[in-house]
Amino acid sequence: MTDPLRLGVVGLGRAFMLMLPTLAQHPLVRLVGASDPREEARRQFEADFSRPHLPARAYASLEQLCADERVEALYIASPHQFHVEHVRLAAQAGKHILVEKPMALTIEDCQAMIDAARRNAVHLMVGHSHSFDAPYLRTAMLIRSGSFGRPRMITAANYTDFLYRPRRPEELDTSQGGGVVFSQAAHQVDVVRLLAASAARSVRAVTGRFDPSRPTEGAYQAFLTFDEGASATLTYSGYGRYDSDEALNWFGEMGRKRNPESYGAARRALAKVSTPEEEAALKNTRAYGIAPSAIGSFARPAAHNHFGHIIVSCEKADLRPMADGVMIYADDKRWLEPLPQPAVPRAEVIDELYAAVRKNVPPLHSGEWGMATLEICLGILESARSGNETVLAHQRARGPVLGGGL
Amino acid sequence: MTDPLRLGVVGLGRAFMLMLPTLAQHPLVRLVGASDPREEARRQFEADFSRPHLPARAYASLEQLCADERVEALYIASPHQFHVEHVRLAAQAGKHILVEKPMALTIEDCQAMIDAARRNAVHLMVGHSHSFDAPYLRTAMLIRSGSFGRPRMITAANYTDFLYRPRRPEELDTSQGGGVVFSQAAHQVDVVRLLAASAARSVRAVTGRFDPSRPTEGAYQAFLTFDEGASATLTYSGYGRYDSDEALNWFGEMGRKRNPESYGAARRALAKVSTPEEEAALKNTRAYGIAPSAIGSFARPAAHNHFGHIIVSCEKADLRPMADGVMIYADDKRWLEPLPQPAVPRAEVIDELYAAVRKNVPPLHSGEWGMATLEICLGILESARSGNETVLAHQRARGPVLGGGL
Ligand SMILES: NC(=O)c1ccc[n+]([C@@H]2O[C@H](COP(=O)([O-])OP(=O)(O)OC[C@H]3O[C@@H](n4cnc5c(N)ncnc54)[C@H](O)[C@@H]3O)[C@@H](O)[C@H]2O)c1
Ligand SMILES: NC(=O)c1ccc[n+]([C@@H]2O[C@H](COP(=O)([O-])OP(=O)(O)OC[C@H]3O[C@@H](n4cnc5c(N)ncnc54)[C@H](O)[C@@H]3O)[C@@H](O)[C@H]2O)c1
Repeated sequence: MTDPLRLGVVGLGRAFMLMLPTLAQHPLVRLVGASDPREEARRQFEADFSRPHLPARAYASLEQLCADERVEALYIASPHQFHVEHVRLAAQAGKHILVEKPMALTIEDCQAMIDAARRNAVHLMVGHSHSFDAPYLRTAMLIRSGSFGRPRMITAANYTDFLYRPRRPEELDTSQGGGVVFSQAAHQVDVVRLLAASAARSVRAVTGRFDPSRPTEGAYQAFLTFDEGASATLTYSGYGRYDSDEALNWFGEMGRKRNPESYGAARRALAKVSTPEEEAALKNTRAYGIAPSAIGSFARPAAHNHFGHIIVSCEKADLRPMADGVMIYADDKRWLEPLPQPAVPRAEVIDELYAAVRKNVPPLHSGEWGMATLEICLGILESARSGNETVLAHQRARGPVLGGGL
Repeated sequence: MTDPLRLGVVGLGRAFMLMLPTLAQHPLVRLVGASDPREEARRQFEADFSRPHLPARAYASLEQLCADERVEALYIASPHQFHVEHVRLAAQAGKHILVEKPMALTIEDCQAMIDAARRNAVHLMVGHSHSFDAPYLRTAMLIRSGSFGRPRMITAANYTDFLYRPRRPEELDTSQGGGVVFSQAAHQVDVVRLLAASAARSVRAVTGRFDPSRPTEGAYQAFLTFDEGASATLTYSGYGRYDSDEALNWFGEMGRKRNPESYGAARRALAKVSTPEEEAALKNTRAYGIAPSAIGSFARPAAHNHFGHIIVSCEKADLRPMADGVMIYADDKRWLEPLPQPAVPRAEVIDELYAAVRKNVPPLHSGEWGMATLEICLGILESARSGNETVLAHQRARGPVLGGGL
């Protein structure tokens, strides 16, 4: 009955591993191709995804993948610095595009990607970002229902161990897109923009580099203002200390129950390496094609993906997205609007991509959307550097308020 | 052995009620006088505090109280708008002064109060404010120990039902000092300044008025920067919805266990009144001299006063003041630095006042300190109005880093 989207993957790294349960299980998608310079990843991909009448083919170069006519759309999950070039190639080959966050490292590159997609009449989407997560989409729909008044004040705080997960050297170099502003603000800003339901105007921020041995931003605080007078505070720390999953009943970012007793695990694991090469090697042990294949052993997550502790104060209620629903604090009572347990995690990403490609539904997470989020991330870095508020210029050109198959 | 401070009270209202367990039980203080226009309050005061050889005398005017030579120091707990005049009178009479927060409504008034105290060689302190609370003083001392590196990033969020407690009309009129910026930012800013351990430089803020029937600020968000690059985000909502005491194991502001099931109680009680007069009358039923006397029936609180959810990210650890201690999240482990159960709540206020008056220890919560906090509160209102960042000018003149009997 359904005709699944035939998808190619560019970059079989960590992002792909995190999308694997989605890509392997979502009924509206089939993985038919991939490109990655790593041979072991290509071998694994063909073994994992080949079907009787639909072989999966993995290539050493993106050009080869682009020449594979079976591929309708590409999921570009290569490192940030390649996004612009990979999107250009994909668009020229007439492939629809889902590119990982952050969309790129400069506004010029974002604009070039948008232009390339438009010129070649392909859909361009940016994600997975956590603003695809069901709790935020549900909160956004509750807000747009009008029942709770306009959102006025958002508090977002996420405390993780991001900076102590094993990294490639450029992930610790801001000039190459390293640090939590490019990688994590891209999520938090995206979520806050979705919930604010109006265009951002300005950002004032401070960034933190507390650990000289990881010389990139590990933390930031930002204050955003929006049209019509709303505001948001964003706090992120990747230093692996206080853990905000406590405020989400110990559901982790991926919607799985965490053990609060495993305190300090990321730092402890990392303490065993002493050079960038050893660290890259440690990262590699978990890489696709090296770690044992996960295919066929996906455990259904108990709850949804999330990105930390968030309260949206609307005129008539506070809304608090949780991993398993949305807590509503109204005047007289509070309750959980429950979300069903996800059948497939991050299903919303494929739902939105499928709706765009097959039904021409303009996606929420369009190129313009991704560029607006990147502008705020760059504004965080800029405001921290200058000590001044940064006024935003690319926030008003937006896609539909809530697009995709929602 | 000890020679308790002989204290007079100006204004036997809600603030006095909240200080009553302290003033009645702290061994270093004796209440010997009071002034209040309300006769029932005066009658109650004399009944509650007269001792065999030390009668308590309550007067209709402050002038009479000032003429009572037994009184060494005055606790000025009259409504904000009277603070400047009452401090002037007290200083001229040679009384040491503890004036409630906010110190005053303008910087000029704060300066006049400081000048009056200096001219008359009396100590001037501002409080109770929640920066007196043991968890914050302990956190501040841990920070100043140097073991955790410099504080870089503070997140403070307090969600209460402040706006729905019964009020006098001027408490809902910002031009007369009403609203959460004057009454509640005075606490939150004070706590954050103490924990930042350096001078504030700028404030960017947005205020919220979500309920037209309570036409004053019920919420705000502020972004502060400090010397040496630290920052803080402050969020306050008094709209009685999400309740941040959840993050403090349901210990309330006064250090007592709360029942999370009593959701919406403040709004429900207030819904029974329909005019400002009825509301003032409702407030009155709980007033000193009308409500049954609490003397002799103080239950020892299980934990300390606090002012919401606060995380201080230092270079080497996150510190989180709780009602019963300070959680420390270090690299390899986390633990609670426990605080002893308070024998007398808010004892720190009297400790600091006693040390100033009797031992000439310069207080932390000096007039300059209170003025610096008020400047930031006024900066919140100003930034919200102008849409610009407010640069601060009165933050560098500070008392000792940690004074009093600490
Ligand atoms: N949405 C999420 O939850 C999430 C999570 C992690 C990463 N990401 C994003 O995904 C992107 C990749 O990050 P990562 O953590 O997976 O990195 P990674 O280092 O784990 O993986 C990168 C992969 O790309 C491959 N690669 C390198 N050059 C390539 C090329 N020219 N063509 C094709 N493949 C190439 C590498 O061999 C590797 O397999 C980044 O933009 C990152 O921000 C998103
Ligand atoms: N630190 C805290 O926790 C806290 C709590 C509540 C109030 N406060 C502060 O205390 C001050 C008083 O607020 P409140 O809530 O107690 O107000 P309130 O209305 O409950 O009480 C004010 C009292 O002052 C009396 N009064 C009025 N005019 C007077 C005068 N000229 N001389 C003497 N007394 C006079 C009134 O009769 C009344 O008893 C405010 O500045 C407020 O910000 C502090």
